[in-house]
Amino acid sequence: MNDTVLVPHRTLLSTVAGVFAERGLAPRRAEIAAEALCHGDLTGVSSHGLVNLTRLYLPLFAEGRTDPLAELEILNDLGACLHVDAHEALGLWAAAEAVKIATERASRFGLGLVSLRRATHIGCAGYHALRAARQGMIGLIASNCGGQRIAPPPGGLAAMLGTNPLSLACPAGAGPPFVLDMSTTVVPTGRIRAAARAGDPIPAGWLAGRDGEPVTDPAALDRGEAHLRWLGGSPETGSYKGFGLGLLVEVLAALLPGAALGPVSDSGGRDEDIGVLALVIAPEVLRPGGSFAADSARLFRALLDCPPVDPAQPVRYPGWPEAERAARNRVRGIPLPRALFEELSALAPELREVG
Amino acid sequence: MNDTVLVPHRTLLSTVAGVFAERGLAPRRAEIAAEALCHGDLTGVSSHGLVNLTRLYLPLFAEGRTDPLAELEILNDLGACLHVDAHEALGLWAAAEAVKIATERASRFGLGLVSLRRATHIGCAGYHALRAARQGMIGLIASNCGGQRIAPPPGGLAAMLGTNPLSLACPAGAGPPFVLDMSTTVVPTGRIRAAARAGDPIPAGWLAGRDGEPVTDPAALDRGEAHLRWLGGSPETGSYKGFGLGLLVEVLAALLPGAALGPVSDSGGRDEDIGVLALVIAPEVLRPGGSFAADSARLFRALLDCPPVDPAQPVRYPGWPEAERAARNRVRGIPLPRALFEELSALAPELREVG
Repeated sequence: MNDTVLVPHRTLLSTVAGVFAERGLAPRRAEIAAEALCHGDLTGVSSHGLVNLTRLYLPLFAEGRTDPLAELEILNDLGACLHVDAHEALGLWAAAEAVKIATERASRFGLGLVSLRRATHIGCAGYHALRAARQGMIGLIASNCGGQRIAPPPGGLAAMLGTNPLSLACPAGAGPPFVLDMSTTVVPTGRIRAAARAGDPIPAGWLAGRDGEPVTDPAALDRGEAHLRWLGGSPETGSYKGFGLGLLVEVLAALLPGAALGPVSDSGGRDEDIGVLALVIAPEVLRPGGSFAADSARLFRALLDCPPVDPAQPVRYPGWPEAERAARNRVRGIPLPRALFEELSALAPELREVG
Repeated sequence: MNDTVLVPHRTLLSTVAGVFAERGLAPRRAEIAAEALCHGDLTGVSSHGLVNLTRLYLPLFAEGRTDPLAELEILNDLGACLHVDAHEALGLWAAAEAVKIATERASRFGLGLVSLRRATHIGCAGYHALRAARQGMIGLIASNCGGQRIAPPPGGLAAMLGTNPLSLACPAGAGPPFVLDMSTTVVPTGRIRAAARAGDPIPAGWLAGRDGEPVTDPAALDRGEAHLRWLGGSPETGSYKGFGLGLLVEVLAALLPGAALGPVSDSGGRDEDIGVLALVIAPEVLRPGGSFAADSARLFRALLDCPPVDPAQPVRYPGWPEAERAARNRVRGIPLPRALFEELSALAPELREVG
C-alpha cells in the first residue's frame, strides 16, 4: 500500500492542533478541535476527517467566517436548558463545549440541553455524542447545515435542506459505547465526493436525477445534475421518513435556537449560522442505584449474541466497528492516502519525518 | 362504496369512550383514550386506529394486562425530568398524561422530559406529540414495543427489536403542525397485516426472508417466514441507520426508564412493560419574544412553496396530508370498512343507527 502513509495518532493530533493554533485558537481549544477532526480518520469515517481540513475548515479562517477567539455566550439560562450563541467559534470545538455544559447540567438536573446558534461545521456528530457516553450519560447531537441546501423534499425540484446529521451515544457495558452517527440522507456528501476524487462509481440509490432516476456518477452532485436521496430511498420504502428526519433535525437543531434555516436562508445557501442541539441525559441521576448500567450491559450483550446469518460476520451494533478500527489505528497508526498526507505536510512540514 | 360506512367523528368518539368506560376507565380518561385511538382513522392512518380495538386493546383488559384505574406514579422528580411508573395504565391515556406533565414542566423550565415504564401500547405516537404542538411547543415521543421482538439486526437471524416508533410535532405557522410519526422499520406491522386482511400483495422492500430476499406475501410475517426490513432497506442504502434509529428509540424510551427491552425480555416477546419517552420543549420560554413562531411559519411556508416535480402534486411536509384528511373526515364522517363497522357495532349496538 505505497499510496497510504501510516501516521501515529499522537503525531496527527499535535500536528493538527498546531495548524489550528497557528490560526489563533488557544492551545486547549486547538487540541479539542484536532481530536474532533482526527476522530473521522481514527474511526475509519474518513469522509468526515482530515480531508476536510483544507477544503472546509481552513477556508473558514481565510475568509473570516470563523472567529478563533469567540466565546460561547449564554443568551438564556433556564437551568436544564440553555440558549447559546456560538459567535462563529470553530464548530469542532464549540460543539464539544456545548456537550460539556449539557453534561454538567445533566449531572445536576437529570438532563441538559444546549441549543446553539451561529456555529460552524462540527465535524463528526458522533465524536461529540461520545463525549457524553464516556461520562456514563446518553448524548444526543443534531446539527443542521446552516443555510446550505443539498436535498429537495420528496416531489420537489429545489434543494431545501442539508444532510442534517443526527447522533446518539450511550454506554454499552463492557463493549464500546453504542454510537449512531448518521446523515438523514442515504449517505453524506463526503461519501459522494470521496468517490468522485477516487474516480469510483457509486451504487444506485445514493443519487437521483431530476426525474428520480438513479445516478451512479458521483461527480454529477457537484455539477448540479443530481441530488442526494433521503434515507428510505423512494416514497414506497420510506423517503418521507428520511425527509421527515431531516426536518426533525432542522427543527431541533436550527429552528429552536434561531439559526439559519435551509429553506429560507438568505446566505446564498452557504453553511453559515449552523444550529446545533446538544442534549445529554444522566440515567444514573434519573434512576439511581446502578441498574441503568446493568440493563445497558445486558441489552448490548444480547445484540452481540444474536445468531448471525453468516457465522463469519458476527452481529454488531453501531459504534462497534468504529471502535474496532480506532483500536487498530491507535496501534499501527492512522492510514492516510498519500495525497492527503502531502496536503497536511505542506501545512506542517515536520510531518514529513513520519512519511 | 357500499363496503364503507361513514360515521360522524363525534359519534365514533363517544362510542369508543363508552367501550373504554365499560372496562372501568373514568370518563375523562376514556375520552382521551378514545380520541387517541380514533386519531388513526380520523387522519387516514387506519393501521393504528380502531382496527386495533378488538385485536390489541380489549384483550389487554380481558387478560388483566392493563389496569383501568392505575395512576401514574412519579418515582423521581428532578423538575425538568421525571421518572414515572405507569403501572400498566392504558397507554392511549398514559402517554397523553405524560405529555401533559412534560408540557407543564416545559412551560416552567424550557423543557420537560417524562421517562415512563410499565406502559401499554400508546396508539399513534403522532397523536401524543401533536398535543404538545397545539400548545405552541415541540413534542417528541418515542416508544419501544416492550418485550416484543419483530425485526432482526442487519446480519442477524433472530428478531430483537420492535418497530419502535418515533414522532416529532412542531407548530408550522398558518398551516397544520409538522408531525413526523414513523416506525423505524420500513413500515409498521399494521400496514402488513392490513394488506394480509385485504388479500393484497405488498411492494418488494417491506419484508425479507431469512436470506434477505424480498417477500411480497404479507401473510408471511405472521407465519414467521419473513421479517420487517429496517428503514434504509439494505446495508448499502442505510439499513444500519434504520436499525440504529430503532436502537436509539430502545435506549431513549426503554433503557432509560428501565422498561422491558426487546433483546433481553423474559416475557416471551410480548408487548408488556412498554417504555415511553415524552420530551417537550417550549421554544418561547427558551427564546422569548415571538421570533420562534415567525421563523417556524417562514420555514414551513418555504417548504410548501418548493417548486414541485409534478405541478398537480404540490410539495407537502409530514402532518399536512394527515391534517387534510382529518378536515375532510370531520365534515363527511370517518370511513370505516364494513367489517370493522360490524365489529364495533357488536360492542356498541347504538352504532347501528348510523349505518
